[in-house]
Amino acid sequence: MSESPITPRGKDFATWYQDVVLHGDMAEPAEIVKGCMVIKPNGYAVWERLQRELDDRFKATNHQNIYLPLLIPQSFLQKEAEHVEGFAPELAVVTIAGGKELEEPYVIRPTSETIVGHFFSKWIHSYRDLPVLVNQWANVIRWELRTRMFLRTTEFLWQEGHTAHSSHEEAVEEVLRILDLYAEVSEEIMAVPVIKGVKTRAEKFAGALRSYSIEAMMQNGLALQAGTSHDLGQNFGRAFDVQFQSKEGKLDYVWQTSWGVSTRLIGGLIMTHSDDKGLVLPPKVAPRKSVLVPIFRKDEEKAVVLEAAAKLAKDLGAHVDLRDGMTPGAKFFHWERLGIPVVFELGPRDVASGNMVIKRRDTGTKEVIPQSEAVAKQAEILDAMQRDLLAKARQRMQDNTVLANSIGEVEEILGSVTAEKGGGKFVMAHLKDDPANDARIKEFKASVRNIPSVDLYDGPGKCILTGETVDRRVVIAKAY
Amino acid sequence: MSESPITPRGKDFATWYQDVVLHGDMAEPAEIVKGCMVIKPNGYAVWERLQRELDDRFKATNHQNIYLPLLIPQSFLQKEAEHVEGFAPELAVVTIAGGKELEEPYVIRPTSETIVGHFFSKWIHSYRDLPVLVNQWANVIRWELRTRMFLRTTEFLWQEGHTAHSSHEEAVEEVLRILDLYAEVSEEIMAVPVIKGVKTRAEKFAGALRSYSIEAMMQNGLALQAGTSHDLGQNFGRAFDVQFQSKEGKLDYVWQTSWGVSTRLIGGLIMTHSDDKGLVLPPKVAPRKSVLVPIFRKDEEKAVVLEAAAKLAKDLGAHVDLRDGMTPGAKFFHWERLGIPVVFELGPRDVASGNMVIKRRDTGTKEVIPQSEAVAKQAEILDAMQRDLLAKARQRMQDNTVLANSIGEVEEILGSVTAEKGGGKFVMAHLKDDPANDARIKEFKASVRNIPSVDLYDGPGKCILTGETVDRRVVIAKAY
Repeated sequence: MSESPITPRGKDFATWYQDVVLHGDMAEPAEIVKGCMVIKPNGYAVWERLQRELDDRFKATNHQNIYLPLLIPQSFLQKEAEHVEGFAPELAVVTIAGGKELEEPYVIRPTSETIVGHFFSKWIHSYRDLPVLVNQWANVIRWELRTRMFLRTTEFLWQEGHTAHSSHEEAVEEVLRILDLYAEVSEEIMAVPVIKGVKTRAEKFAGALRSYSIEAMMQNGLALQAGTSHDLGQNFGRAFDVQFQSKEGKLDYVWQTSWGVSTRLIGGLIMTHSDDKGLVLPPKVAPRKSVLVPIFRKDEEKAVVLEAAAKLAKDLGAHVDLRDGMTPGAKFFHWERLGIPVVFELGPRDVASGNMVIKRRDTGTKEVIPQSEAVAKQAEILDAMQRDLLAKARQRMQDNTVLANSIGEVEEILGSVTAEKGGGKFVMAHLKDDPANDARIKEFKASVRNIPSVDLYDGPGKCILTGETVDRRVVIAKAY
Repeated sequence: MSESPITPRGKDFATWYQDVVLHGDMAEPAEIVKGCMVIKPNGYAVWERLQRELDDRFKATNHQNIYLPLLIPQSFLQKEAEHVEGFAPELAVVTIAGGKELEEPYVIRPTSETIVGHFFSKWIHSYRDLPVLVNQWANVIRWELRTRMFLRTTEFLWQEGHTAHSSHEEAVEEVLRILDLYAEVSEEIMAVPVIKGVKTRAEKFAGALRSYSIEAMMQNGLALQAGTSHDLGQNFGRAFDVQFQSKEGKLDYVWQTSWGVSTRLIGGLIMTHSDDKGLVLPPKVAPRKSVLVPIFRKDEEKAVVLEAAAKLAKDLGAHVDLRDGMTPGAKFFHWERLGIPVVFELGPRDVASGNMVIKRRDTGTKEVIPQSEAVAKQAEILDAMQRDLLAKARQRMQDNTVLANSIGEVEEILGSVTAEKGGGKFVMAHLKDDPANDARIKEFKASVRNIPSVDLYDGPGKCILTGETVDRRVVIAKAY
């Protein structure tokens, strides 16, 4: 048995992650383009699964897909003051095109609120035109200094929803509907439990009234913001003059929302479930649910085994690994690293006895079963694995969530946590939503992740920094 | 009845096209970004249908999707001499990022052969690594001077396949397999007949050994190159040092292919089938196959009609148009412009008699049918429409294809043809594949579209320019 190419989590979490990504055929760094990656076949297939799950839900809630230009006139960014301040440092700028210096440079979209504002002002005139509910699947660029595959790359793939409404109430409903939809896909499909909540004012999207997020916990206890849904109020409506005539004949600015999840989800998926043997994929996101590895030594065994394998694989919907010049052992390691939920073995003795071996990826459990029960057993294992991965991740989140009642306590718990060493926690503390308080937390490189949508602990209490009474505990953590 | 917002084809073909695109909710110009468009909901939904048809076929032929960076180091383009010459004038260049001037600028991909070459050289070492069969769905930018929605836009969406093989023979097989696949989707799904063939040397992709295309004919007789598949030979293998060890232990450069279709297909679809009433979509690309418009005058009729409509629509998979404050007539025009293949009417008298009205978009035929036969009738009409649209387009192509045996004849036929006036033809003539001959054809703004893969007419003959004997007639036409 060859030595595993995957660095154990306990030794170096960051290198483990990189190894799992590389050996899982998920992505590789594209070092020739700063901070970019190539999404490899297994990674892209997982993204396609997530796209399908999300897109079906967007369409079921009456959203339509459109596509807007990649390039945005630089002046557009400047129309919303907070927005330009937030994004200006991260922009990639096109200054030459078609062999000529451009009169006005274009920026590559870091997000599309500004160009959406421009088009909404053309499309929306009356309450009859509302709501507008659109989404686009696209690439964006944000020039980040420190990057990590999937979690933070200068270019990434995402979806961005943009909606316009005739009332603030309706816009807020939309924001929360999407937050629920994101949480559902994260928990039910990716088996990644999340905490839904509102971001503090200091952490909100540049240009939003309020931002909502789902926050997940990685195996090292660090938080990952896995999706955001923004109540933009009338900020972009005012900036881009998107006015409509109400039923009563009055002119008003539209109320907008925007929301997005990105290929970052895949990083969160990997950091939640994978182990020292490689990638672990919950069955519902696994592009391939099962593989059958046929085993034979002599040529006369081969025909018999392959015939039985083909028949079984067809019923199971399994891929048969027919590669020549590769030992069964090497094949098992290969599929293990790719995160295939179920791997079957079938040898000549199995063919004779009517049995086969089924192996479950997350637990490593191996079992000899009658071939006649394989289809039912596979379905059972896939169900159990999906359920158990979520339960395990929930338990981990619970085990690593602690209450704190003073800033000293929070700093004590989180101060020395790093992504590499691990030991991160979600620290639940009463804290007032005030940028000065966020700044204090940032001193030890932690942050307020969100203020949970529902009270998760003991109700109101005194802010650990100002002593004022606040509604409920917030989530404080170190984060990616 | 209000006047149609759509300019008739006979009056002004270019304006007709623009009107159909706009009123069909397909796209609108994004005049703030040079030569770009916004793809609107109906246009994007058609693109999603085409993506599904193509992607399923790519996967069935063992291709895997990946994603490569949008930005390419400028120096990469220069590694293949013909390639840079072909694309340099059309590049958009990023010179500033993250607030700083870049040491080496990036170009926004006009196509990805160069970055693919870089990664293939990392991934491929031995014949065991071959073939590599990958595809990406992506946006690209080519700074064009004259643009037209869908047909030619500075940014467009496409798929680009990239493959590497251990022999030229295998690469050519791949190139032709994909050309067949493109022709199949074009004809069977889009109902757009095409001529498969090889481009002349003068018209091939910059950096390819040979390029193959499918060429369609629009209603004004102009040609549209609807898809291309390139035999890249070892050109990019050499430029990016993609070498592999053969079974015999020898080092050799890989043989590569690349191939793509884009949102341009949608332009071709529109210009093939649509009419003076608006968009006509073949059922297989129509995001929505049918709509039911309920008709009632008095409130007491409404409940009865809507109840029956809901029941029928469920069986038919039809959308019920429940919009308030809009006359049935306005609704019919709306769905007509959107290209919905089948529209049903249901009024109080229909409910009483057990009948309903079914209207077919392309022929405009209206028929009263028993409700009990609606499902079968709808299926029959959708089938017939798909078949008839292809037959009609084939007939048009045939009617507008002529033979010519001298350059004077060719110029006579094509010289005065324009996109606006129409009257375009496919002129089949014997012509030697020589850039000098292409140049002569270009004098009257026509071009050799391709040399058909199979002889479509009378076998070998004398070149109309050089008198040399050539294999078969080529397609000469004015083109988009």
